[in-house]
Order: sequence, then C-alpha cells, then structure tokens
Amino acid sequence: MDRRSFLKTSAVGGAAAATTTLAAPAYAAGHRTLTMVTSWGRGLAGVFDAAQRVADSINAMSDGSLTIEIKAAGELVGAFEVFDAVTAGQADMYHAADYYFGGQHPGYFYYTSVPFGMTAQELANWYYHGDGMALHDELGQIFGLKSFLAGNTGAQAGGWFRNEISGPEDFNGLKFRMPGMGGEVLGKMGASVQNLPGAEVYQALASGALDGTEWIGPWADEKAGFQEITKIYYTAGMHEPGAGLSLATNRDVFDSLTPAQQKIIEIAAGECHQWNLAQFLNNNGAALQRLQSGGVKVLEFPDTVWDAMGAAAAETKDQYNGDEIYDKIRTSYEASMSASSGWLTKSEGAYRAQRDRITG
Amino acid sequence: MDRRSFLKTSAVGGAAAATTTLAAPAYAAGHRTLTMVTSWGRGLAGVFDAAQRVADSINAMSDGSLTIEIKAAGELVGAFEVFDAVTAGQADMYHAADYYFGGQHPGYFYYTSVPFGMTAQELANWYYHGDGMALHDELGQIFGLKSFLAGNTGAQAGGWFRNEISGPEDFNGLKFRMPGMGGEVLGKMGASVQNLPGAEVYQALASGALDGTEWIGPWADEKAGFQEITKIYYTAGMHEPGAGLSLATNRDVFDSLTPAQQKIIEIAAGECHQWNLAQFLNNNGAALQRLQSGGVKVLEFPDTVWDAMGAAAAETKDQYNGDEIYDKIRTSYEASMSASSGWLTKSEGAYRAQRDRITG
Repeated sequence: MDRRSFLKTSAVGGAAAATTTLAAPAYAAGHRTLTMVTSWGRGLAGVFDAAQRVADSINAMSDGSLTIEIKAAGELVGAFEVFDAVTAGQADMYHAADYYFGGQHPGYFYYTSVPFGMTAQELANWYYHGDGMALHDELGQIFGLKSFLAGNTGAQAGGWFRNEISGPEDFNGLKFRMPGMGGEVLGKMGASVQNLPGAEVYQALASGALDGTEWIGPWADEKAGFQEITKIYYTAGMHEPGAGLSLATNRDVFDSLTPAQQKIIEIAAGECHQWNLAQFLNNNGAALQRLQSGGVKVLEFPDTVWDAMGAAAAETKDQYNGDEIYDKIRTSYEASMSASSGWLTKSEGAYRAQRDRITG
Repeated sequence: MDRRSFLKTSAVGGAAAATTTLAAPAYAAGHRTLTMVTSWGRGLAGVFDAAQRVADSINAMSDGSLTIEIKAAGELVGAFEVFDAVTAGQADMYHAADYYFGGQHPGYFYYTSVPFGMTAQELANWYYHGDGMALHDELGQIFGLKSFLAGNTGAQAGGWFRNEISGPEDFNGLKFRMPGMGGEVLGKMGASVQNLPGAEVYQALASGALDGTEWIGPWADEKAGFQEITKIYYTAGMHEPGAGLSLATNRDVFDSLTPAQQKIIEIAAGECHQWNLAQFLNNNGAALQRLQSGGVKVLEFPDTVWDAMGAAAAETKDQYNGDEIYDKIRTSYEASMSASSGWLTKSEGAYRAQRDRITG
C-alpha cells in the first residue's frame, strides 16, 4: 500500500470538512486512524502509560475524528527502530525517549536528559517558555518530524549494582546498561556500556550479561523486578535528572491534519508531560519504602564518583560541539538551566529548607 | 433571559449530534459560547495569561464547538464575586485562585496553597495521581462546580516592605496585603491583613493604605511596578509555596457538554497548570536581575520570623479541623506532601546538590 497517497487523500477530505458547513459530520468525514509505534513493551510502568495517556486524550478530545492505535515495541518495529519508521512513513508517530536517537542527531540527547543537565521543571521552563520547543521543531525539520514532549520520569535513580561502588575505579570494566550521553560518560570511566530496551534489561541482569543497570526510579524499577536480582540500589544519579519522553509525528501526516487536530496533539502531549511526571513522583516514595522493607540497601555514590562523572560529562558534551544545531541547542539549554536554577534555589529551595527545618 | 433553560436546550442538541451520524455537522449543531469570569484584571501578567491560555486551547481544540469568552475582573462581576456568579449560573466558569473562596469552604485553601504546604510539583503529584482531584470534585459538588487546576505561580516571593524585617515583632500592626491562610498567619502575628484583588494593590501600597504586600514573584511583581514604591524585597515566603489557579465550571453546564468537550476542558486545564508554572519560573530569574539592577534589595526573613510563621501556620490550619471534608483534604494532602517530599529530597535534591557543587 502506498501510504503517502493514502495520507494525501485523507488530508483533502479533512480540509474540505473544515471549510464548508455543508459537509458530512466532521467525525465521519475527517476520520483518521494513526499508528503510534513506541519504544516500550506493552504495559511497561510509567513509560507505556504515557503513550497510552496521550493516545487516550487525543482519541477522546477529537470525538472520533482521530484514532491513535498504539503498537508496543516489537509489534510493528523494534524499540529503537521507531524513529526511522516514522521518518520513513511506515508509522505515523512514535512515543519514545529522544536520546535513543542521539545517533541520528546529538541534539536529541537534550530532549530526554543530559548528564548534569536540567531537572524536569527546568526542562519545562525551557521547553514551553524558552527556545526548547522551537529548537525541537528545528531538529525535527531535518528528519520530517513534528515533535512534542509527552512524558517525564523525573530524576532517575543511579541504578542497581551487583557490588557496592566505593570509587570511580569500580566502573572500570563494569557491564552496565545506560542509554544516552550518560552511557557515554560511564564509557569514559571504563564501563562496558550497553543500551538495551527496557523489556530486555531484566533478563540481561539476571543472566549476568550485565553487572548492573539503571532503569527509571523505585516505582518502575520495582515493577521491572530488579530487586529480585540484587539488593544494591543508588537513588541519585547524574545521567537523567529529568528525562523527557517525546511524541513525534511524521511531518507530512501532521501537516495534513486540521488545525483543531494539530492543537489536540500539542495540548495532549503537554498535559501528558506533567501527568506522567506526577505519576512517577507520586509513586516513587511508597515504592522505595517497599523495596527497603524487602531488604534493598539504598546508597549514594561517594563524591569522588560524582567528580569523575562530572569531568567525563563535560568531555562528552564537548565532543559534539561544532554542529550548528547542536551548538544552538546546548547554548540555549545551558543558559536557561542557569537562570531557572538560580530562581528555584532562591525561592523554592530556600522555602523547602525552612519547611524541613520547622516541620521536620 | 432564562439561562438554565437555554442550557438545557443546547444540551439536547449536543446529545443528538453525538448519537446519530445523520445530524448536522457537530461544530454547527453543538456550538456553545461559555462565559468565563476571572479574578484578574485584563492582561495581568501570568494569571490573566493562564485564563487566556486555557480559553484559547479549548476554543482551538473544540474546532468551534465551544467558544470561551473571558471577562476580566469587574467586566461582569468583581474579582472575588466569580465563585458566586458561577454557582448561581450567572456565568459558566471562573478562572481564579481558589483560596479566595476559603470563606465558602476552608477546603479551598488547599487548592491554591497553604502556609508551609506543597510546592507546585508536590501539588501536581497529589492532584493528578493522589486524591487531590477527586477531593476537589467532592468539594465542588457542594457548590455545583466542576473544578480543575489550571495554572500555578510556583513558590511566591515573601513580598515588598517599606522597612526591613528584623524579627517577628515587626509584623505587629503592619498593614499588609496577603490572601488565604497566609493572611491569617500574619494576622496571628499581629499584622492588619487585607485581601485586595491584584488590580488594586499598587494603588493601596502607593497611597500608604498598605505598609507592604506580597503579589507573586519577580516577573509579575515587576510588571505590577512595586519596585517604584519600595526597594525592599523578600524572595522566599511561607504563604504560597506553589499556588494553584483553578478553572471551575458550573456543574449543570459541564454535565450538559459532550464527553469530548468535557475532556477538552480537563486536558486544557491540566496543560495550562504546567504551561503557566513554566511561564512564571522561566521569567522570574531575569526579572529578579533587572529588579536588582534597579536598586531593589533582595533579602531573606531571619529564622525567628520563619519560626513564628511556622507556629502561627499550625494554629491556623488546626482551627478549621472538625469539618468532615476539610479533615479529609488536609489529611490526604499532608500524607502526600510527606511522601513526595521524601523522594524528591533523595533524588532531585541530592542530584542538584552535586550539580551545584561540581558545575557551580
């Protein structure tokens, strides 16, 4: 089937419905089914939920004019093939973490998380009121994508290890799962880094193919079952301080939608960014308590490890310098992070310190 | 005009359009104009923007089936009369800060902010994934309202003062503008507290009717122009650590909408909560720098003031205990805040401390 010509036909129908009051009811004339491929195994806690949330919102708000059909990882294409599937028009949209596509363009790292980068709130500030969304769009134009943030995990846990970490030398030769720039940082520290899709991580850790892994945070990690394999858990990490998830639509498909349908996708994605972040954050506290009750030991990396990570992170980010869009994104991102962080420290930070001091 | 019977007629039209494919186009048959009254002067930075954002989103996503007409404070009813106007059916919805309506029910304080209460992120966790939204709905049923959070200012600044504050005794006799429970806290500390709408605050401070005022934060405060009157500014405050704004629709009106229209209002409001929070936070840093360049002195309250505020805040919250819904809301809110805060400290808090230490 020639997908492109199918799309063009539907687009004409949609435009006609929008410009005359004599057309058949909009939900009949403009009906479109869009295929969403995802990087997530069906039902994977938090991340698949975000894909489902944004699809449900679009379906409900469009009153039948759009139907999003979700394909979990492997159902149509593999977890990391969703980007190419959508740019090629094999699927209409993907829901994924854009740092999986740092190989396509390193600018994409910034739309999930970079080491020592933005928290989720800082990312939202930059994305919705700084240049973040416009630069995401500029990046998408290279690949024929229209992208929106549509989920966030919050600050991710440092991860699960078979043995405790006492210094940066313990990363030497460690077989560890970590995608994105964070993985490159650990690589510089000597780790043998693998980037497995979520659905494959448990088995790799259980079989010994991995010495450790990060996934998301207590709630999603508990559901993945890593506590059955090891009890050593580092809660804070440098690699994904506020990991955004993205909904990216093939640009020809997006351009063929009505303005109302386009706005529905944009607002559904934005709402999902907040909804999903609140989901992770609301569930993590109780999950951590359950993990600890089950014998999981909660630890923090020593400062020497953070220092080594900091040096390797700066190196990692610098090595991509020189690409025009990458440089624009990095410069804009870092200036915004500094401004956001300054105010948050002075207001919310000062307040929380007093609240903790007074109410305990 | 009998507004209720008008609504019932439209509702029937909407239901018919939804159940038959032979009806006229939905955007013609189901067209509804809804009046939104707000507590904000037209164009008031951040808060009126939130009302405009949610209205624009609803209008665009509904493809003409809904048109929201915004009335600024005073255009149809006064800033603090919007609640009664919507419960009475004089207007269809309001956009306001629900703590203005703590007199109608003290449970409403929790849907803006309470002293030593939740940050914006903690509020989102509770609202979207704890019991927050369901309890907002329970409260709304008493008054015939269907409410959603639809904006957030982030942690508000402690405020503008004619003279520096060196201890809690300096609040004695101070004529200060602060709404909500925060105002009651200052009242217990001896202040003469006034709850003026935003549009009237500048004049009151300039004329000497007020010795000081809080408003929102650097960006909105700068636009309000308080720096023209005094240069003494406290950036952190106890009173509104993450002030939510609400969109509340008359329940008969809401029930008469189609499921798609109802979902559009819900998702538009949720998206606006995040969009507006990011707006304030993205603008505050630069605004504070401008204020400081203009001679504004940025200060923090001494611990003795925070301690006195903490004691008065506990007293203030306790005095409402005994009402069934208030108790349910408070208990749920405080348990959620504690769980959210615990994880945020362990993850994002630990991360930010390391990021600040390493990257400065």
